[in-house]
Amino acid sequence: MKILILNGPNLNLTGKREKDIYGNLSFEEYLENIKPHFPGFDISYFQSNIEGEMINKLQEANQTQDGVILNAGGYTHTSVALADAVKSTTIPVVEVHISNILAREEYRHISLIAPHCAGSVFGFGLDSYRLALVWFGFLSEG
Amino acid sequence: MKILILNGPNLNLTGKREKDIYGNLSFEEYLENIKPHFPGFDISYFQSNIEGEMINKLQEANQTQDGVILNAGGYTHTSVALADAVKSTTIPVVEVHISNILAREEYRHISLIAPHCAGSVFGFGLDSYRLALVWFGFLSEG
Amino acid sequence: MKILILNGPNLNLTGKREKDIYGNLSFEEYLENIKPHFPGFDISYFQSNIEGEMINKLQEANQTQDGVILNAGGYTHTSVALADAVKSTTIPVVEVHISNILAREEYRHISLIAPHCAGSVFGFGLDSYRLALVWFGFLSEG
Amino acid sequence: MKILILNGPNLNLTGKREKDIYGNLSFEEYLENIKPHFPGFDISYFQSNIEGEMINKLQEANQTQDGVILNAGGYTHTSVALADAVKSTTIPVVEVHISNILAREEYRHISLIAPHCAGSVFGFGLDSYRLALVWFGFLSEG
Amino acid sequence: MKILILNGPNLNLTGKREKDIYGNLSFEEYLENIKPHFPGFDISYFQSNIEGEMINKLQEANQTQDGVILNAGGYTHTSVALADAVKSTTIPVVEVHISNILAREEYRHISLIAPHCAGSVFGFGLDSYRLALVWFGFLSEG
Amino acid sequence: MKILILNGPNLNLTGKREKDIYGNLSFEEYLENIKPHFPGFDISYFQSNIEGEMINKLQEANQTQDGVILNAGGYTHTSVALADAVKSTTIPVVEVHISNILAREEYRHISLIAPHCAGSVFGFGLDSYRLALVWFGFLSEG
Amino acid sequence: MKILILNGPNLNLTGKREKDIYGNLSFEEYLENIKPHFPGFDISYFQSNIEGEMINKLQEANQTQDGVILNAGGYTHTSVALADAVKSTTIPVVEVHISNILAREEYRHISLIAPHCAGSVFGFGLDSYRLALVWFGFLSEG
Amino acid sequence: MKILILNGPNLNLTGKREKDIYGNLSFEEYLENIKPHFPGFDISYFQSNIEGEMINKLQEANQTQDGVILNAGGYTHTSVALADAVKSTTIPVVEVHISNILAREEYRHISLIAPHCAGSVFGFGLDSYRLALVWFGFLSEG
Amino acid sequence: MKILILNGPNLNLTGKREKDIYGNLSFEEYLENIKPHFPGFDISYFQSNIEGEMINKLQEANQTQDGVILNAGGYTHTSVALADAVKSTTIPVVEVHISNILAREEYRHISLIAPHCAGSVFGFGLDSYRLALVWFGFLSEG
Amino acid sequence: MKILILNGPNLNLTGKREKDIYGNLSFEEYLENIKPHFPGFDISYFQSNIEGEMINKLQEANQTQDGVILNAGGYTHTSVALADAVKSTTIPVVEVHISNILAREEYRHISLIAPHCAGSVFGFGLDSYRLALVWFGFLSEG
Amino acid sequence: MKILILNGPNLNLTGKREKDIYGNLSFEEYLENIKPHFPGFDISYFQSNIEGEMINKLQEANQTQDGVILNAGGYTHTSVALADAVKSTTIPVVEVHISNILAREEYRHISLIAPHCAGSVFGFGLDSYRLALVWFGFLSEG
Amino acid sequence: MKILILNGPNLNLTGKREKDIYGNLSFEEYLENIKPHFPGFDISYFQSNIEGEMINKLQEANQTQDGVILNAGGYTHTSVALADAVKSTTIPVVEVHISNILAREEYRHISLIAPHCAGSVFGFGLDSYRLALVWFGFLSEG
Repeated sequence: MKILILNGPNLNLTGKREKDIYGNLSFEEYLENIKPHFPGFDISYFQSNIEGEMINKLQEANQTQDGVILNAGGYTHTSVALADAVKSTTIPVVEVHISNILAREEYRHISLIAPHCAGSVFGFGLDSYRLALVWFGFLSEG
Repeated sequence: MKILILNGPNLNLTGKREKDIYGNLSFEEYLENIKPHFPGFDISYFQSNIEGEMINKLQEANQTQDGVILNAGGYTHTSVALADAVKSTTIPVVEVHISNILAREEYRHISLIAPHCAGSVFGFGLDSYRLALVWFGFLSEG
Repeated sequence: MKILILNGPNLNLTGKREKDIYGNLSFEEYLENIKPHFPGFDISYFQSNIEGEMINKLQEANQTQDGVILNAGGYTHTSVALADAVKSTTIPVVEVHISNILAREEYRHISLIAPHCAGSVFGFGLDSYRLALVWFGFLSEG
Repeated sequence: MKILILNGPNLNLTGKREKDIYGNLSFEEYLENIKPHFPGFDISYFQSNIEGEMINKLQEANQTQDGVILNAGGYTHTSVALADAVKSTTIPVVEVHISNILAREEYRHISLIAPHCAGSVFGFGLDSYRLALVWFGFLSEG
Repeated sequence: MKILILNGPNLNLTGKREKDIYGNLSFEEYLENIKPHFPGFDISYFQSNIEGEMINKLQEANQTQDGVILNAGGYTHTSVALADAVKSTTIPVVEVHISNILAREEYRHISLIAPHCAGSVFGFGLDSYRLALVWFGFLSEG
Repeated sequence: MKILILNGPNLNLTGKREKDIYGNLSFEEYLENIKPHFPGFDISYFQSNIEGEMINKLQEANQTQDGVILNAGGYTHTSVALADAVKSTTIPVVEVHISNILAREEYRHISLIAPHCAGSVFGFGLDSYRLALVWFGFLSEG
Repeated sequence: MKILILNGPNLNLTGKREKDIYGNLSFEEYLENIKPHFPGFDISYFQSNIEGEMINKLQEANQTQDGVILNAGGYTHTSVALADAVKSTTIPVVEVHISNILAREEYRHISLIAPHCAGSVFGFGLDSYRLALVWFGFLSEG
Repeated sequence: MKILILNGPNLNLTGKREKDIYGNLSFEEYLENIKPHFPGFDISYFQSNIEGEMINKLQEANQTQDGVILNAGGYTHTSVALADAVKSTTIPVVEVHISNILAREEYRHISLIAPHCAGSVFGFGLDSYRLALVWFGFLSEG
Repeated sequence: MKILILNGPNLNLTGKREKDIYGNLSFEEYLENIKPHFPGFDISYFQSNIEGEMINKLQEANQTQDGVILNAGGYTHTSVALADAVKSTTIPVVEVHISNILAREEYRHISLIAPHCAGSVFGFGLDSYRLALVWFGFLSEG
Repeated sequence: MKILILNGPNLNLTGKREKDIYGNLSFEEYLENIKPHFPGFDISYFQSNIEGEMINKLQEANQTQDGVILNAGGYTHTSVALADAVKSTTIPVVEVHISNILAREEYRHISLIAPHCAGSVFGFGLDSYRLALVWFGFLSEG
Repeated sequence: MKILILNGPNLNLTGKREKDIYGNLSFEEYLENIKPHFPGFDISYFQSNIEGEMINKLQEANQTQDGVILNAGGYTHTSVALADAVKSTTIPVVEVHISNILAREEYRHISLIAPHCAGSVFGFGLDSYRLALVWFGFLSEG
Repeated sequence: MKILILNGPNLNLTGKREKDIYGNLSFEEYLENIKPHFPGFDISYFQSNIEGEMINKLQEANQTQDGVILNAGGYTHTSVALADAVKSTTIPVVEVHISNILAREEYRHISLIAPHCAGSVFGFGLDSYRLALVWFGFLSEG
């Protein structure tokens, strides 16, 4: 099963700030650590701070992947364009957030992306990604 | 690990309506099916249509359980009282929803409960419960 | 035709207050008075101040009755849970109110229940119930 | 008992569209069919697409009729002028709607007219009119 | 000086209701009573319940009158079309209201017409019209 | 192809005011000037300041025309009744505005009519009508 | 008849700015000019930029005057305290504004004072005061 | 004087959490401590997490008590049904809150219950109850 | 214990209006009557209609008193400046209102001052002040 | 006449999805098909998913083109930056949309771009572009 | 260059509270410290807690100063009267705030004064005043 | 001291439009003119129309600079992503705007960036940048 993890703005800083929460691991290192739990998976990773590059990548993934795990960061709450891109995919997209966006500032309570996703996982730290991968595992079980 | 699954109003009807989505399984049957995946777990189940009974149960679980998986159904969006009860627990509570509440009517986009939960899992059908259990598994791994 | 009249919070006080409007009749007495107008009907009555008990009763009625006349009182405007219960019934539910809720405080102008009802009758005093029964009579005429 | 049925904009199209719901009967034909159920009634009918003509008619009815059944169509939600006219009548006015306006688009949830009516009947199809007539029957019973 | 008094919906009922406030005088009788105070004026009067007829009259007055006193009744708060008509006049229009609209229901606090008027006079009963005429007197003084 | 151009309130003043923008041509003269560009078309024209007359005309056009070009003027933003009339037509209706309503006062940003139209053309001056006719030409091309 | 004209903040600048509109007359000079039109009146004048001083003066006037003409300037829209003071007077208070507040910025459309006034006169320049005096003349006529 | 103290959801946890604020006393122990200050009082106590049970108790108290001290907890902000119950009592009800609800989250600033209470006491910790009792003492003084 | 009672705008009129509610006592007389109940207290009193004078007094009291009882009248709902002043005091301030502000007009439901007060007492008439004094008594008890 | 067609996010997918509406033509193929209708035009085409690239292109076009046809896709509703770019162009920009944005989700009803465009064409499918080109033809006619 | 620094409510407390932020300097001492940096300046200082006194001072400064540095404190967000006073000055007024008001409570995000100021400086502590003075230095450079 | 000036969308057009306000200087030329005033500073400059490139640059500056002067143009009001990037910097960021954003359209009154900045300078034209540099000078003074 081919899965793209697509991270949005400022998520390249994971592991470089707020180390008390997530430790010293960068996202890439975290990913290496959890890959052994998903033996049949081909997991790729892409991060961009640019909204349109995320759309480009999502359109491309729709041709080449079996699913996408999307953490759109700050674009979650503002990007109609990215939401339209998710809407036009034919493969399942799972929305994840490291923190619980519903427990933060009010402008983060809205996800324009959620209505077009297979499901959403919020607030479990980096384990939100791992749960999303587990779900793709359920999916491949049938 | 002792986990209570606490279901709110109308969730006793699962498996009796919308069978095309969830099959003919009642929630109890579903639970029996997935229990073998969680060998070290002691999973109990309680459902009530009465808001205050859910509060009672949650207060009790806080004394006797290691965690709660809470689907508050329609009370998710309206019950300050239930949210206060979640806030006062000292064990982790995970919020789940069968459907993606952010993709439904606008009055369902608000979760009063989310700010006080460890995390939220929305939209994966009955597998939302299973993912929540997987997370408790991560937790017990340390 | 089997019809349940389901009354919500504070409606047990009918006839005990505001006697200048409704006379000294309790709801039960009123019901006895109008029953002779509906010879082929089997009319039962249930009142509760507890939101969840109303949901319980509605779920039960869906198995045993041909229709429900529902005056949800103050829950009309706030209960997503009760509205979900009405939505999941397969028998017709008619919403009634003694007063015209659209002519009262603004927070009473919203009915979460109405979208899931066969129809609504507001403002005719206790005769709102009688009109709802008349409609079930039309229904049984075909 | 002299009753005017006053229909507003686009209600002259009843029976010409959405035939699957109301059959092929025009409103006039429907009225002929139900008149025999109301032997002591003198029922007249007026329809206009023009807001001000409805006000004219309502003012006139206040001098000549015992009651009015009013379906103001789209003016229900926007016409302060028509609502003022209803407010100044001294005979009872009953508001009816064929569909349940509380179950449609949000801008149809507001009735400017309701606060000044004896009562409201929504959502029973053309039978909303018949129920209103039944209520005038209750009224003449005393 | 030629002045048109243009009254909107339901203002033909003045003097027929709420007699304790305005006495038994109809608007026409009131007008006859105050005309002697305005010797150099040619005052005409038009009332309609129909929004579009008011627009017709206003467009016509713009060709034939020196000023308009406009009480748009319920259309004050809702009619963009009438406001546009006032905006396109080149003679002064004075807005009057018998009651103080800012002291009534909230939806009456908005006047779509006011921004396009020379001035507004609210709340002095029928004397609001007389004050408007006095102002046209000031105007003719230079 | 039979097309009705239906103009709403105050649009009879076109060419009589704001001459610096549209020249001295009345709408009728403008129409004569562009008719030669549409040889196979039978174009008729109707203007009214009265909301209900526009509804009357629209209902009639639905029986006799192939399409309608509708500039509802101020009723665009307020008339649920007119919008309902557009919704019930079975021929295509194109919404036009001389100015760009989205660039004017906020209360003009809402068009109740647009959701029921084939398309909308805003802001090209009187050429908005000509573009609408061009589109009907595309339509007749197939 | 003893009348106090009570002017609020920045109204001491009248005649010193925007001279193209009101000429070079200060408010005091204007007042001298119109006094001859009101022979039986004893008109006093007070201006303050301080909200509480206006309340003090209004309370005092309630003991010593027959009426007050109040232009509260910027406090019109924000001062609950001043509105309470107007509410507690037993003599008639007339609200005036030089400009038409309903035609200016949205935050000026609200008058907290209007609900407690005998009437309001807006937008006639300094003549708004003169019209208010004329009305007190009507009042003394009986 | 017979007074019922009626506590709502989660208030059974007082003394069990946030001990730094209220000490180790449970509500029952606190009550025993202050009773000696109110020698002529017969004080009873009831707590429920269930909205409808609170309504039941309030209706009953209206028959048997001289007053009620009500802390509705989270239902304060959401329960139209409970507010209706307070409204229909004929004995004085005093609203109390341990914390100052106006100083907390915005959704706690609204009290649906306050409009129907004799008065409200917020923010004095458990002493809010004691102050309410003191007031009933004033009342019995006459 | 030195306590300042600080009354805001229009509260100097207490006892001069609405005598049916509070009797003929002025606030000063009321104060004399209750002082004997508070033997160890040194109670001073200050009233002003001027927002800034209240701030001046509050800043001064912070140096010289042990507590303040504040009824800010109409400034309660609008004065950020006064609220800031309360916030910067280091002695306890208790907010009182004679009427229940939550039961009055909607713009009175907001208290900018409450978040910075020790507690709030609303709606007990002049006894609101007495209850506040009682609370300072509790405070001095320790 | 040199015209740039500037398409925003996801519009590169036209012809690849929703084939039942637009056929199998890509936007480029569609453009080739209509070019013969515009013999004197030099039409270029640019698409980007990146908001800032669209701004870059628009700034460049302002130097090199006679007009722009802009379909900003999802950025229409959210991009103040793109709207500022349109505002600073000195050549006419025509806004087009394939669907009628006023008939879709509420967040699509707002166009930040429209106020700065020569005109807007919505809802005619790909023919919206063709109509925009026709208008540039009118413009070149003079 | 003559500059008035005009400080509003509670700013007389600077240096007496929050000493960890601003040190022990009073505003007057701070002013003495920075004056040497502005050799050609004649800087005066005025503070008042009274809104109307600030208006008085501002009107006076308009006659006697070359510029004003205004920190309106809590009146920034509520005072239409003060904003009107700023609007009527003909000398430049610079708005300053010690803290960044856009980073505090939502009701502090609105500045009624800003639209009428030459510019605004927020959030640099007492150095906000110094930057404002620097700007007046730029101004005098030409 | 190393300072990056980071300009957002459309700010590359400065000096090319609105020359009457800023003269013919481009931003680069302006920068050269003021650099001599800041002898100990190493000032670099970057402009981009692309939101994500601004985030990239800001993240990089956080490693290499001592401070950032940020004019985010239209992204100020809409970009949660850019605001998150500012929030995660550890060097001071000063927000500047050429115009006073609080005096422009309402959607420009909100700055998502301000809460995370050291301070904000609005409305002094290009001198807003110079004042920001002056402040960094204060900072280096200690």
